[in-house]
Amino acid sequence: MTTIAVIPGDGIGPEVIEPALDVLDALGLGTRTDVLDHVNAETYLRTGTALTGADLDRIRSSRAALLGAIGDPRLSDTAYVRTVLTTLRLELDLYVNYRPARLLHDRLSPLRDPARRAIDCVIVRENTEGLYSGIGGGTRTGTPQEIAIDVDLSTHQGVSRVLEFAFSVARRSVCLVDKANAVRNGGQLWQRCWSEAVARHPHVETSHLYVDTAALRLATDPTAFDVVVTNNSYGDILSDLTAALAGGLGVAASANLNPVTGKGLFEPVHGSAPDIAGTGTANPFGAILSVALLVEHLGRTEEADAVRRAVAAAVSAGRVTPDLGGSLGTKEAGAAVLTELRRP
Amino acid sequence: MTTIAVIPGDGIGPEVIEPALDVLDALGLGTRTDVLDHVNAETYLRTGTALTGADLDRIRSSRAALLGAIGDPRLSDTAYVRTVLTTLRLELDLYVNYRPARLLHDRLSPLRDPARRAIDCVIVRENTEGLYSGIGGGTRTGTPQEIAIDVDLSTHQGVSRVLEFAFSVARRSVCLVDKANAVRNGGQLWQRCWSEAVARHPHVETSHLYVDTAALRLATDPTAFDVVVTNNSYGDILSDLTAALAGGLGVAASANLNPVTGKGLFEPVHGSAPDIAGTGTANPFGAILSVALLVEHLGRTEEADAVRRAVAAAVSAGRVTPDLGGSLGTKEAGAAVLTELRRP
Ligand SMILES: CC(C)[C@H](C(=O)O)[C@@H](O)C(=O)O
Ligand SMILES: CC(C)[C@H](C(=O)O)[C@@H](O)C(=O)O
Repeated sequence: MTTIAVIPGDGIGPEVIEPALDVLDALGLGTRTDVLDHVNAETYLRTGTALTGADLDRIRSSRAALLGAIGDPRLSDTAYVRTVLTTLRLELDLYVNYRPARLLHDRLSPLRDPARRAIDCVIVRENTEGLYSGIGGGTRTGTPQEIAIDVDLSTHQGVSRVLEFAFSVARRSVCLVDKANAVRNGGQLWQRCWSEAVARHPHVETSHLYVDTAALRLATDPTAFDVVVTNNSYGDILSDLTAALAGGLGVAASANLNPVTGKGLFEPVHGSAPDIAGTGTANPFGAILSVALLVEHLGRTEEADAVRRAVAAAVSAGRVTPDLGGSLGTKEAGAAVLTELRRP
Repeated sequence: MTTIAVIPGDGIGPEVIEPALDVLDALGLGTRTDVLDHVNAETYLRTGTALTGADLDRIRSSRAALLGAIGDPRLSDTAYVRTVLTTLRLELDLYVNYRPARLLHDRLSPLRDPARRAIDCVIVRENTEGLYSGIGGGTRTGTPQEIAIDVDLSTHQGVSRVLEFAFSVARRSVCLVDKANAVRNGGQLWQRCWSEAVARHPHVETSHLYVDTAALRLATDPTAFDVVVTNNSYGDILSDLTAALAGGLGVAASANLNPVTGKGLFEPVHGSAPDIAGTGTANPFGAILSVALLVEHLGRTEEADAVRRAVAAAVSAGRVTPDLGGSLGTKEAGAAVLTELRRP
């Protein structure tokens, strides 16, 4: 039986995971869930650690994991969020962060020109290197002479494998985004790996943009893009930008993947949103669309598409939470998707 | 007499500098120009260097400098662009990159919601540190074991001075943008300098966003921002995004400043645009608005505003180049601004 580890997490995390699991159930795939509902800020505050070796073992022995949100206003030193998210990404070597941005309904686009609204692209973000390396330090800390450094790390192996994944999911084209004109060493390594990847895939259309230009082009005409592949930091920024263009954080889903081992961690792009936690108004669509990605990962493409169509239908019908201009609560919006899903 | 060093540069650089200098002349400030028209790719290709010590001396002994664009498709290894731009920024210690984004006319906004179009913010970008430090290197280069690193450098002195500048130009509020939740060492240093700066300016409204959220918020509601202060790399990305929201690269101007020495280098945000160089269709408004920034830097606020109003009037009248939907050439669009400027 296929086991899915579930980490509801903090804030609105548990609230959006509930309807997401209802959707997973409704698909009748016979999956079993292993819920780790102690992986959260409460546990971290009490014990100093939120993700034990035993937790990691449970996640490792599952086929995939679904996460709600991690983050708590009481833990502002950020070590907590990094402990959980970065540990999961590194320990499971989930080297791809896959962030699709597809407009579900014209109404959700912030763009003026109707011809440029239909964004349908994927940000493929390197997920284990770059400025997230954790390498660095400081000296004369706390004095006016303080210096701090963080190391932006690129390896041939790390870059090549994420580029290879990007080509494997391209429908029309792959665009490399870097800043090789200013950030020299990593830039040259990415460029070298890129030439090799392009040579391995002579039939895919390719292009290259510096990250500043990429942000500008995405904001004005996102329809020009299919797959955008980039490093950890630029991927973090550009995928929030494409999320904005595809309807906002409420509908953004992501997958952290290791295409070689087949492991995957699926999560909405939004955080724990302490400002609305407990009000019952969080948008569950990001979590539900993360279930679609998870189900696709299990090879159930048809079911994944059915979930996406059901969410799109709920959006069309205006059966949405306040962030999308509706008046439904989390539960009702989730129920609307279930209703659509069950429509013959 | 006030001397302005002028570097027309490459591609469309000389084409947009011409109308920009016409505007400067028309203001009748009695400035003298020292044109360095050999600082370009031709010189670099011939001699291996584009900016000599003598050039730097001429620029240093000027009150300010105006630059068209640097870049050439024959010099794709990027060393050339960095040599010129980064050398100028570092040698003159121009630690502030000041990039205002103000919508000149409603028609230019890419945003759908009329209430969110009127962007009027400034990106204050640290201009001498961060990932532009030049520190780093690689090992096993050219092999599958290659590793490359680039150092993201933050110093207390460097961060404090740019934050101080940001507060000095705030009209309503200052928003700090960083990624302290993931990029730990520099993040903590920025946060510490930020607390100190906030304490020095108790009457300015302040906020803090992570860079991914900042990109998302800017793309959906840029009217919420006044001054955004951030590091070299995030400033590079976010200022291209705000340029897109304010009408595109064609109208984006920037200043590289050292507020202590009073030195300044003014340049349009666009590059040398080899694709349209020579066609006479480049938009001169970015260069002309850079002249407005330069003139403001000389203390001539009224003249600066007059230039901005003249450009806005030309845009209103549709007297614009193709990138803004018009049919004028560079010269004609420049002439349109001059006509508006001379209107009593
Ligand atoms: C050309 C490049 C090195 C430069 C930068 O990133 O600083 C440019 O994008 C800019 O913003 O002035
Ligand atoms: C919370 C933060 C460390 C994280 C990241 O930057 O990776 C988040 O923004 C994301 O994109 O998943």
